[in-house]
Amino acid sequence: MNIFLDWAATAPPDPEIFQETCDTALTCYGNPSSIHAAGQKSASKLAEARQKCAEALNVKPQTIVFTSGGTEAGHLPLLALLRRPVQGTLAISAIEHPAVIEQARILAHCGWKTLIIPATGEGFITPEAVLSTIRDDTAYVAVMAVNNETGAVQPVEEIAAGIADRTKGKKKPFFHVDIVQAAGKIPVNLNCPEIDSAAVSAHKLGGPRGIGLLYHKKRFEPFIMGGGQESGIRPGTENIAGAWGLAACLVKNCRSPADDRSYSMAEYIIESLCSVPGIAPVPETRKPDDRRFSPYIFQFTNSMFPGEVLVRILSERGIFISTGSACSSRSRARPVLQAMHVKPEKQLGAFRVSTGKSTTKQDIDCLTETLKDIYQKNKMHTKKE
Amino acid sequence: MNIFLDWAATAPPDPEIFQETCDTALTCYGNPSSIHAAGQKSASKLAEARQKCAEALNVKPQTIVFTSGGTEAGHLPLLALLRRPVQGTLAISAIEHPAVIEQARILAHCGWKTLIIPATGEGFITPEAVLSTIRDDTAYVAVMAVNNETGAVQPVEEIAAGIADRTKGKKKPFFHVDIVQAAGKIPVNLNCPEIDSAAVSAHKLGGPRGIGLLYHKKRFEPFIMGGGQESGIRPGTENIAGAWGLAACLVKNCRSPADDRSYSMAEYIIESLCSVPGIAPVPETRKPDDRRFSPYIFQFTNSMFPGEVLVRILSERGIFISTGSACSSRSRARPVLQAMHVKPEKQLGAFRVSTGKSTTKQDIDCLTETLKDIYQKNKMHTKKE
Repeated sequence: MNIFLDWAATAPPDPEIFQETCDTALTCYGNPSSIHAAGQKSASKLAEARQKCAEALNVKPQTIVFTSGGTEAGHLPLLALLRRPVQGTLAISAIEHPAVIEQARILAHCGWKTLIIPATGEGFITPEAVLSTIRDDTAYVAVMAVNNETGAVQPVEEIAAGIADRTKGKKKPFFHVDIVQAAGKIPVNLNCPEIDSAAVSAHKLGGPRGIGLLYHKKRFEPFIMGGGQESGIRPGTENIAGAWGLAACLVKNCRSPADDRSYSMAEYIIESLCSVPGIAPVPETRKPDDRRFSPYIFQFTNSMFPGEVLVRILSERGIFISTGSACSSRSRARPVLQAMHVKPEKQLGAFRVSTGKSTTKQDIDCLTETLKDIYQKNKMHTKKE
Repeated sequence: MNIFLDWAATAPPDPEIFQETCDTALTCYGNPSSIHAAGQKSASKLAEARQKCAEALNVKPQTIVFTSGGTEAGHLPLLALLRRPVQGTLAISAIEHPAVIEQARILAHCGWKTLIIPATGEGFITPEAVLSTIRDDTAYVAVMAVNNETGAVQPVEEIAAGIADRTKGKKKPFFHVDIVQAAGKIPVNLNCPEIDSAAVSAHKLGGPRGIGLLYHKKRFEPFIMGGGQESGIRPGTENIAGAWGLAACLVKNCRSPADDRSYSMAEYIIESLCSVPGIAPVPETRKPDDRRFSPYIFQFTNSMFPGEVLVRILSERGIFISTGSACSSRSRARPVLQAMHVKPEKQLGAFRVSTGKSTTKQDIDCLTETLKDIYQKNKMHTKKE
């Protein structure tokens, strides 16, 4: 039996949500843009899915646009900048997902300049760092709610308030929050009036691939065009089954965000792993009971193996972890750890453990014992040589 | 029992393909970017899906990029123009899908000018029309393979050759072909060396929503950025189940494109419908045995009801047709018919019948009889008044 501890990359499919998704695919196949009964049945189901997502996130249904995932949800408001007559700057946090930071950088081809908001050594983006980065011509700011590599929960509401305060009387920059690792996991307040948009992905919550949503406080003029679906914000034939699956994910997960039990489990994870000689949390200052971090994402470093080697050895033993973001696994660079000024040897030995609601203490015990065993065998092997 | 004659909008789910898609979602849930065994299992399945799609389309696997659908597949090469240092013009056929024509037009915000290639009165784009539209600064040309409203099969190979010939010794414009209504339905030759990219969608072939593919002859520098998936051309966690579903669609449908039976069925459809007084094909010159049109898409016009009213009346009787593109159903404008200079009263009465491999003569008989009955009742009603 394998142990899956890579939930931040993707979650195992939730059987209930999977069933609802499949049923919808079979029963609501009409194109919701079609005016006949088969189309209208799909259109109703889509509206119902939107309503459910909105209720789960405590926002209005008209602020929800279904997308093909978190990446596309992040792109839509960013690309909309290309409709503006005057270019300016973007302020992007140093720990942002590549879907946002890389897309922002490429806008340089269209005259937009990206400024990077520095992170603290613990991987936090402070309101002060944001304010010292934004300028009079800053049109867009992005800070993610929960970092996907360290689990650091960012003070997005304080940042939002800070931006609003600083730009009072002027045009406030658009503020986007990537909540892919937050929605359904920790409490998220999208009713904060200074948050303009947010991105969600279903597959991080046990839902289907290829579906996500963009929350957008107000309608914006889109740069991505097509058949006018999703209020003209996201074109393409709507994925009703996916939207329904995402709604089911949010309904199920948002009603029970991280609680004392989740944090006590987090404590257990950090204490267990750090009982293995040579393993330490990243940042080093992360305490077992540190609620400034998501109780589902843990970055560690180890002094025995490069992270990638450790991932492979554990995989051979049926335990699935990762080094950092799956999306960055192609390059060995660790931009988030670099932004935190983690020392190169600690970056090399870094690995991520990310959990879900079904992760058990037994899973963690097995990981800890396996790590001890691997290290023990490696030591003996090294001594022999 | 309902009769579904709106296949060009979306096809009813194919049970075999649906099953394969579901099985894949449950068994290959690892993130293919993850280096552990669960991730690598998904990566292999994705590679296998790519291989199957490539074989079905008779191209190399490295030319296939999975996308969230036909719309996104159309966008990727178009948006890539934004990386070019010098702007120029785009030549877009007047009958193109809004995903291409509207996206092209919005590039005006970034200095690109769209020139429209006129259609003939029969809805064809001739090589001459393309050549008279392209200029020295034309960087991109788009002509779809099969029009989604009329079924007109466009001479894309002749157009491709014409463009290559005209621009010999200079940089050839990028030539994109939307094959959403062609792939798996009529023979498509992507090995034509002057076709640079093509877009495919699964749900038009009975496959899942939210998955499509972009064929691209050569790698291009992408403007859409993120986690580097799909050779850096299309970011976002890969939808393995969707990709597998699309592969199953193409394998199943590409091996049996339209044959004599399909064209004989098309003949039956046109003859049956035109036996109803007041109904005529659009264009009027489309003969029942006219192989210049897809045997799956038929535009008609009727003199009794506005097309939209007819769609609603038929829907109440359990027969699902459309006026034109589902993607354009929000506005009553009929840009394709306008481009063909169809008279306004004929545009108003226009409706589309689109069929699939499971459509039967009995379905068509039922549509024909129902239309006759509706007209008869309406005549009596009008007389009474």
